[in-house]
Amino acid sequence: MPPPTLLVLDAEPLPRLGRLTGRARIEHADESSLAARLPHADVLLVWDFTSHAVRRAWPGEGPRPRWVHTASAGVDHLLCPELAASDTVVTNARGVFEGPIAEYVAGLVLAFAKDLPRTLALQRERTWLHRETRRVAGTRACVVGSGPIGRAVAGTLRALGITTALVGRTARPGTHGPEDLDRLLSRADWVVAAAPPTEATRGMFDARRFGVMQPSAHFVNVGRGELVVEEALVRAVRERWIAGAALDVFAAEPLAPDSPLWELPGVVVSPHMSGDTVGWRDELGSQFVELFELWASGRPLVNVVDKRRGYVPGH
Amino acid sequence: MPPPTLLVLDAEPLPRLGRLTGRARIEHADESSLAARLPHADVLLVWDFTSHAVRRAWPGEGPRPRWVHTASAGVDHLLCPELAASDTVVTNARGVFEGPIAEYVAGLVLAFAKDLPRTLALQRERTWLHRETRRVAGTRACVVGSGPIGRAVAGTLRALGITTALVGRTARPGTHGPEDLDRLLSRADWVVAAAPPTEATRGMFDARRFGVMQPSAHFVNVGRGELVVEEALVRAVRERWIAGAALDVFAAEPLAPDSPLWELPGVVVSPHMSGDTVGWRDELGSQFVELFELWASGRPLVNVVDKRRGYVPGH
Repeated sequence: MPPPTLLVLDAEPLPRLGRLTGRARIEHADESSLAARLPHADVLLVWDFTSHAVRRAWPGEGPRPRWVHTASAGVDHLLCPELAASDTVVTNARGVFEGPIAEYVAGLVLAFAKDLPRTLALQRERTWLHRETRRVAGTRACVVGSGPIGRAVAGTLRALGITTALVGRTARPGTHGPEDLDRLLSRADWVVAAAPPTEATRGMFDARRFGVMQPSAHFVNVGRGELVVEEALVRAVRERWIAGAALDVFAAEPLAPDSPLWELPGVVVSPHMSGDTVGWRDELGSQFVELFELWASGRPLVNVVDKRRGYVPGH
Repeated sequence: MPPPTLLVLDAEPLPRLGRLTGRARIEHADESSLAARLPHADVLLVWDFTSHAVRRAWPGEGPRPRWVHTASAGVDHLLCPELAASDTVVTNARGVFEGPIAEYVAGLVLAFAKDLPRTLALQRERTWLHRETRRVAGTRACVVGSGPIGRAVAGTLRALGITTALVGRTARPGTHGPEDLDRLLSRADWVVAAAPPTEATRGMFDARRFGVMQPSAHFVNVGRGELVVEEALVRAVRERWIAGAALDVFAAEPLAPDSPLWELPGVVVSPHMSGDTVGWRDELGSQFVELFELWASGRPLVNVVDKRRGYVPGH
C-alpha cells in the first residue's frame, strides 16, 4: 500500500514533520492551489491557521481528506457546512495553548490591578508619582468559556486568590450555565472571554452585557473577536461603563490602523499572541506527528472536534 | 494615672486613631518639632515612614519613648545606634505589605515574560506585530530575603508554576544560606531582592553578582535601594549582562530626574508603591491600634524588631 498523502496548507516552514518521512507523501499547498489538491489528499494539515482558504476550497462531494488537523485551538476558520456535514474527522491543537493563555490573562489582570500601563507612561516623563493600587486576592473573576482554555485561566486566577466563576454552555458541577451569566458579570472585577465562536457566543458581549458590568471592571478577550460587539465595547470604555479592556483578538485581524481601540484609554491591544510562547511551533509539530501515528495505525484520534458544536467536547 | 502620651510623626491625616481617644494623649510632631517632643512621649508612632527624622532626633540619654512603632516593613529609617542600644521596643507593620508586594512581583514577572511593555509601545504606534513570548511555568526564580515579604513572593511565584528558591541569612529547611546564592543566581530567570538593608545585604547586588546572572534574567527589587550598586545595575542592563529590571526602590527616593534608570531599555521604574494597595492606610492604623491595646494592657507586643539585626526574626 502506498503511503497516505499528507497535504499541508502552510505559509512558512514547518518544524518536526521530518519524522514522517517515508510514512507519508507530504505535499504543500498555498491558498490558490488548495482547491485543486484537496481531492487527492488523505490528510489535510492546516498549519496556516490564519487562512480561511479551507472554507472556500472544501470539495462539496467526491474525494476529500478523511482527516483534517488544524494547528490552532479554534476551528472557525475551516468549519464550512460541507465539512461539518461530511464524515471527515477534524482535530485541533488542544493542550498547546491553555497554559500560555492562562498566564497571559493573569499578567494582564495584575497589570491592570497594579496600574502598570500608567507606571510606564509616568516613567517616560521621568515623573515620580506614588499611587495606591489594587490587590487581586479577594477580587472576583467571571470566565466565559468552560473549555480547556477557560478552565486553565480559572485555575491560574484562583492560584492568585481570585474568586473565579466559570460559565459554560450548560450548568454542570464547577461550571455555571448561561442563566447565571448576568448576575456573575454584575459582580465581577475581571471578565474573561475564553469561548469559541458559536451561535450562542457570537456577539454575546454587547451593550447590554457591558452595561451590566461594574464601572471598576476590566474585560479581557482571549477567545475570538466575534464574541464582542466592538462598537459597544468602545462605547462602554469611552463612557466609563467599565474601567478598561485587554484585547488579544479582534473581529478583523490584523486590527485596522484606524480602529479607535488603539488609542482608547484603559485598553491594551495585543496582536493575537497570548497563546504563542517560545517553542510553540515545535510543540504543534510534535503534536501533529503523534496524532498522525494514531491515525496511521488505525487507533482512535484524540482532540476530535464536535463539528456541530465547533469545539472538542470535554469535562 | 494619666493616660500615656502618644507622639505621632505625621505628614498627613491618620486614619483609625480616633479609637484611642481618652486612652492616650495624642500629640503630633513634624520633623522640626520632633527632637523637643520626644523626651515627653511614652510612645512614638512613625506614621511618616519616609522621614529619617527619628535618627537625628533620638535622645542619647535621659527620657525617651518606651515603644516606637513604624507604619512600614523596613526600620532602616529610624534605627540609629542610640535607639538600637536602648531598651526601647521597636515594632513594625509586618503583615500589611506582604500580599500586595508578592502580587506586584508576580505582575512584573508576567509583564516581562509576556513582553507587555513592548506591546504597549507598539500599540502607541498602531503597529500589529506578532511575537513569541515566554511561559513562566517551569522557569526558575531566586528570591533573596526570607522574611515575610520574601516568603510571600516565593509563595505567589510558586503558585504560577515557577521553581523558586529562597535565600536567607542562614540555611534552614526551605531556605538556602548565602553559600548557595551565586549558584542560584547563575540559573535564575527571575532574581527578586526582598531583603532588609543590613550589613550583610547592603550593596550585595554588585557587578560581580550581576555578572553571574544569565543574559535572559530579570532583576526585581522590592527590598531597598541600598541592596544594589546602582551603577553596576545600569552597566549590567546597558551591556546586556541581564535582560532587564523592575525597580520599586532606590538608593535615593524620589529617583532623581537625571537618573539613567528612567530611560534604560528593559527597566521599569515605579515609585516605591509595590506594597501600597487601596485601604493600606486604614490597615496600618488598625494594626497600630491593636498593638497599642496590647501595650496599654501590659501584654507582650508582636512584630517586635530585633534592633541588632534590623528586622523581625521569624521562621
